[in-house]
Amino acid sequence: MTRDNQEVVDRIVKLAIETQSWGYVSTGTRFKVFDTPGTARDVWEKIDDAAEVHQLTGVTPTVALHIPWDAVDDYAALATYAQQRGVRIGSISPNLFQEDNYRLGSLTNVDASVRAQAIAHVAECIAVAQSTGSRQISLWLADGTNYPGQGDFRRRRRWLEEGLAEIYGQLPSDMSLLLEYKFFEPAFYHTDIADWGQSLLLCESLGPRARVLVDIGHHPLGTNIEHIVATLLGRGRLGGFDLNSKKYGDDDLFVGAVNPHELFLICLELIKAEDDTDPMVTGAAHEILYKIDQCAMVEDKMSAMLRSIDAVQLAFAKALLVDLDELERAQDDGDVVGSNQILDDAYQTDGRPLVRQARQRLGVPDNPLDAYRGSGSARTRERERVGRAAGW
Amino acid sequence: MTRDNQEVVDRIVKLAIETQSWGYVSTGTRFKVFDTPGTARDVWEKIDDAAEVHQLTGVTPTVALHIPWDAVDDYAALATYAQQRGVRIGSISPNLFQEDNYRLGSLTNVDASVRAQAIAHVAECIAVAQSTGSRQISLWLADGTNYPGQGDFRRRRRWLEEGLAEIYGQLPSDMSLLLEYKFFEPAFYHTDIADWGQSLLLCESLGPRARVLVDIGHHPLGTNIEHIVATLLGRGRLGGFDLNSKKYGDDDLFVGAVNPHELFLICLELIKAEDDTDPMVTGAAHEILYKIDQCAMVEDKMSAMLRSIDAVQLAFAKALLVDLDELERAQDDGDVVGSNQILDDAYQTDGRPLVRQARQRLGVPDNPLDAYRGSGSARTRERERVGRAAGW
Amino acid sequence: MTRDNQEVVDRIVKLAIETQSWGYVSTGTRFKVFDTPGTARDVWEKIDDAAEVHQLTGVTPTVALHIPWDAVDDYAALATYAQQRGVRIGSISPNLFQEDNYRLGSLTNVDASVRAQAIAHVAECIAVAQSTGSRQISLWLADGTNYPGQGDFRRRRRWLEEGLAEIYGQLPSDMSLLLEYKFFEPAFYHTDIADWGQSLLLCESLGPRARVLVDIGHHPLGTNIEHIVATLLGRGRLGGFDLNSKKYGDDDLFVGAVNPHELFLICLELIKAEDDTDPMVTGAAHEILYKIDQCAMVEDKMSAMLRSIDAVQLAFAKALLVDLDELERAQDDGDVVGSNQILDDAYQTDGRPLVRQARQRLGVPDNPLDAYRGSGSARTRERERVGRAAGW
Amino acid sequence: MTRDNQEVVDRIVKLAIETQSWGYVSTGTRFKVFDTPGTARDVWEKIDDAAEVHQLTGVTPTVALHIPWDAVDDYAALATYAQQRGVRIGSISPNLFQEDNYRLGSLTNVDASVRAQAIAHVAECIAVAQSTGSRQISLWLADGTNYPGQGDFRRRRRWLEEGLAEIYGQLPSDMSLLLEYKFFEPAFYHTDIADWGQSLLLCESLGPRARVLVDIGHHPLGTNIEHIVATLLGRGRLGGFDLNSKKYGDDDLFVGAVNPHELFLICLELIKAEDDTDPMVTGAAHEILYKIDQCAMVEDKMSAMLRSIDAVQLAFAKALLVDLDELERAQDDGDVVGSNQILDDAYQTDGRPLVRQARQRLGVPDNPLDAYRGSGSARTRERERVGRAAGW
Repeated sequence: MTRDNQEVVDRIVKLAIETQSWGYVSTGTRFKVFDTPGTARDVWEKIDDAAEVHQLTGVTPTVALHIPWDAVDDYAALATYAQQRGVRIGSISPNLFQEDNYRLGSLTNVDASVRAQAIAHVAECIAVAQSTGSRQISLWLADGTNYPGQGDFRRRRRWLEEGLAEIYGQLPSDMSLLLEYKFFEPAFYHTDIADWGQSLLLCESLGPRARVLVDIGHHPLGTNIEHIVATLLGRGRLGGFDLNSKKYGDDDLFVGAVNPHELFLICLELIKAEDDTDPMVTGAAHEILYKIDQCAMVEDKMSAMLRSIDAVQLAFAKALLVDLDELERAQDDGDVVGSNQILDDAYQTDGRPLVRQARQRLGVPDNPLDAYRGSGSARTRERERVGRAAGW
Repeated sequence: MTRDNQEVVDRIVKLAIETQSWGYVSTGTRFKVFDTPGTARDVWEKIDDAAEVHQLTGVTPTVALHIPWDAVDDYAALATYAQQRGVRIGSISPNLFQEDNYRLGSLTNVDASVRAQAIAHVAECIAVAQSTGSRQISLWLADGTNYPGQGDFRRRRRWLEEGLAEIYGQLPSDMSLLLEYKFFEPAFYHTDIADWGQSLLLCESLGPRARVLVDIGHHPLGTNIEHIVATLLGRGRLGGFDLNSKKYGDDDLFVGAVNPHELFLICLELIKAEDDTDPMVTGAAHEILYKIDQCAMVEDKMSAMLRSIDAVQLAFAKALLVDLDELERAQDDGDVVGSNQILDDAYQTDGRPLVRQARQRLGVPDNPLDAYRGSGSARTRERERVGRAAGW
Repeated sequence: MTRDNQEVVDRIVKLAIETQSWGYVSTGTRFKVFDTPGTARDVWEKIDDAAEVHQLTGVTPTVALHIPWDAVDDYAALATYAQQRGVRIGSISPNLFQEDNYRLGSLTNVDASVRAQAIAHVAECIAVAQSTGSRQISLWLADGTNYPGQGDFRRRRRWLEEGLAEIYGQLPSDMSLLLEYKFFEPAFYHTDIADWGQSLLLCESLGPRARVLVDIGHHPLGTNIEHIVATLLGRGRLGGFDLNSKKYGDDDLFVGAVNPHELFLICLELIKAEDDTDPMVTGAAHEILYKIDQCAMVEDKMSAMLRSIDAVQLAFAKALLVDLDELERAQDDGDVVGSNQILDDAYQTDGRPLVRQARQRLGVPDNPLDAYRGSGSARTRERERVGRAAGW
Repeated sequence: MTRDNQEVVDRIVKLAIETQSWGYVSTGTRFKVFDTPGTARDVWEKIDDAAEVHQLTGVTPTVALHIPWDAVDDYAALATYAQQRGVRIGSISPNLFQEDNYRLGSLTNVDASVRAQAIAHVAECIAVAQSTGSRQISLWLADGTNYPGQGDFRRRRRWLEEGLAEIYGQLPSDMSLLLEYKFFEPAFYHTDIADWGQSLLLCESLGPRARVLVDIGHHPLGTNIEHIVATLLGRGRLGGFDLNSKKYGDDDLFVGAVNPHELFLICLELIKAEDDTDPMVTGAAHEILYKIDQCAMVEDKMSAMLRSIDAVQLAFAKALLVDLDELERAQDDGDVVGSNQILDDAYQTDGRPLVRQARQRLGVPDNPLDAYRGSGSARTRERERVGRAAGW
């Protein structure tokens, strides 16, 4: 399968990326959160920022919310507000890690009342999703232990299975549950859902609308993420991505800052799956949620978001350039250097002209970051948004 | 559940550990294999060594074979030879990585005839197992790729599933298949069965007699192995261990050399599972194969083997000392320091007197390593075993 | 050199460990800081806690301060207060990471006025140290960058050298500078002082009173820390430790929670250096600062501190049991298993009776943790310390 | 400093890369070395291969030798042979890891006679270098231990210092010593020269002609190698590179296969150093040895070598495109996203046209790999080179 440039542009035009509300606020490390002037002070301003990003890029029509960070009294009003600004509410992320009760876990807490509290909170988020027209609950659990002996792995696992089953039972039939995993942090001895295997087993026991969400930064160093992606695609269970980049732990840098080649290889698996002959594979592949999940700690948030989106588009463009027919022939021939060279031919190509064409089709600036930086929008923010910014 | 010392000794007495024939030969790194005088020159001498280890320890009644390294014309004769020396043939490991044909994979090779060759070799190993009275096929695949693009993940996965299904179909009903996984090496871009999740999915699709084998050294750094062990136990799918220790990659050092605390934590999960209320859990827990899989590169092989066995016994002894009732109470109270302290109370205890008692019950020397080193056995070996030693 | 038990106890009795004021307050991760009732609300209460730990253990006569977290108007009064409670003020840690100005670095900031601000803050800490009778400035820099291109490595290095030279120039002749290093976090692309090599080069260029501080948690996974310790000892440049344990990143768990064997191996290097024939080595070895630097995120802080101190004492006790003469003989004989066995003989020994003897000599409870937990001290704290606790 | 395309091409044309003789033979892992038909059978054929690579690329005028793998009776004849084929003998690598005597170390062996043997072997390599007109001894030590206690770190260090001092004393004044470091393998507990810090300290104690050699694959995962490179450049002590790529350990894959972005960032530091104002920095920067050190385990060796060279050229070309003046301005402005964007603008550019121009200037094929694969050269090799190939 060799795509001509027009087909590549067509696919780039159709690529939808979700930005997340917590990408527009000040976040940081345990040592310090640096506030930036002009940062959104509430969920309405976060939506304003998301809308501006969509105006500049044309590919970020939805914005993910995090409850209770983005809690409001009237979610229908929030959805309307978003639509008026040209975007929609996307996935809803429950927060099961900031209540004092969650000190020793949420769905895996030894205390049944805390587990019930966690389940009730997710149920509340499902209700929010219904009000906002959202279709996905994106669930990350911070649950785990810090010390050997602190908890019993298998007992906690059973509670987790029971809690998720209850949550899944409350999920409307048009909604899906995306279940994230993470190697470590904030728990430092064990994480209850530590890897894709843990997450997949849970999803498969729940039902067809439970799928795994892959956060690029949540793996041990050296992990072959594209292999995991391919495995999940092969089971029809890849639900989405939290996109960012990392060098060490869960660094949450903007996409493309570290090892952009890895993202290219991941995108290649996605593109192959979209064109698979197995409808289970293609069906799930076409429903994947591409969500940004970076954390602009020292840099300008809007610029970082635009850089991430650019990096995702570039990775897809290059992956789309891979000549899959030729690749399969080289693989069939056992031509190791040749098959790698075919990938590299695509990767070495400058993908920016193709992304630029897609932008022209979308009616947005050729270079959204330059457009933003030249627009005076940052200064307007700083002038208008005075007072305490929203945090995590 | 608090065990008194007698119960601990009882359990230690019953602990059976398998030594592996390739632990008695000269192995090394890609840079150099150092030969040691007195090293076994063929499978008969490897069995002699295994038998001597069993005489010294009383807990290693079986010896694992690796085919074709241990190939002979008459396997029944080999089994008889072993029995005459007081040991039995244990698990059989096929070799799917040293034929020239396996350069680009065995069960995942793009060439159907190579895949068939690999299947046929495992079938041959099943026949060996039948001749020797073995009950387990222990399968490690070196399959993987070195470069992005070299192979197609999902296509290789399908071949793997097909090949394993064919193998499983040939497995007699009293035999089980243990399927290993490995993070990296000898493949350096991706390994087809890279982690416990990949292995478990395959096992569960095959049938109840396919179980996961955990090699302690086959994980990314930082991995919580005891959590994986607990997860596999919870699904009744933990089949066995390859026991060794490591600081970096798959270093294959003798057991207990690096971070013995980790092995203690692993043993704790095993002991908890043995006493579980769920028969699926206890059933599998009591059938687990404890196999040594170290590689004495610079040190004396017999001594290294005895050290490994000692380390396994010590880890079990200490894990058996954990007061599980008190632990559960502390966990129920959310007492983080207290629950960890309960583990540490057991770990800090000197486990050697208990192991010594077990040895006295078994009628073997109090300190097998000292007994070996004082016996002149090494010198006898050096004198008698002249000529080229067996290698991998 | 074989020590009898009495000599081991003598050495344990003399071991002084510094607790740090920030070990007595609520700390956590970027996701959440859990407050614990009864936690110290100001520096006076932190000193009360440190004093209670010293009363319980007899080995923590000093408490480290962190400025400005522990800033007061009258440091002489603070020192007097500490002395009245039976402790002294120990090392002083400047904070060069929580001012908004330090967003892009402190001593390596591109802005000369920020660099001057950082130097002035350290000078202020030197003045604090003079007021409190402290002898050590313990400096950790959070400086680094998050993205390729953000800073110029060599330019930043020069600023760092200049800034440290200015600081060192202001150091009174009876005070030393301990310079820490860290692999990553809070900077996620590069850390200016990333490893022992970076730190040592800086120290050697400054002068004899600049020494490296090793935080156990600040290394890449797999790093052989005891080898680094030995190297620094060999150059007379090991100044101190931040003691904690870790499984993944800089987890800051209490000492001994993960891989206590590693701490034993580190202690062995320290003990060997104390008895070295080279006065440069022994001189520095006897001045090493042993400072706890853990972070009790979910557990009781006092209990965690007592566990850390216990773990350090146990590690030293076991290391002191190693028969160094026999070890050297085994090494000289090329006896790999034997030399490791000599270490293991010490490690497997129950070190608690020896530590208990030391405690009896010190006139403190046999088991400080049990004594604390049985004392009602925690409840008193909760009752008396009402209102907002001190944070980082 | 903005280079126009012509200046970029000029620098690429001047870039000299050394290929290594052991890149032309069959190597592999500890599990298997796959032989490839047509592989060089002796050093003469390795030089033939290196010469063909130079004919195809125009940038690999020298070939590194490894003694005794490439030992011959008459080194002057070998040098003449190389010159007749259009190449020269480059750096000489002593082998201090394959003699049986080196089981427990070479320069750090407890046995003085083994240490003397190692020193004598390096002296022999210096003599070889004089015969061949080589200017560099490239020294990698495999020395280390596998188990705690096996050796004494500081004693081994002293032997290492003494041995290297003796070697350095024998080095002719026009020859330099490049000293490599490695995190782990083949030693699995500690490596005597484990990191850049260990190597640099040794070099600085030896004298100005001792410099550090950086093997890209010899670091813990996550290490910021470009930061190390900058540090060594800043001290005038970066002597050379062993170029390859890796995902896990010391995988020795061809250059550019994994994370080519990292090599680009390394090259950027090199280019900045070449134009530095400090003559110590530029002096050393212009003398750096760029040596390929890959290991073609499953792929065609000639193709792999050509891919590596291509990847190095591309990385340099892109790094040369970075607008250093604009970068410094952005850094001075604290513009984090902007400064990273300047790097990315260069990295996203297709570097192949520039490399192609350089090749045209050099009079070699536009695409050396295609030229080689189309030339029938591989088939000629297979036909002519019958019989046992040379191995490590």
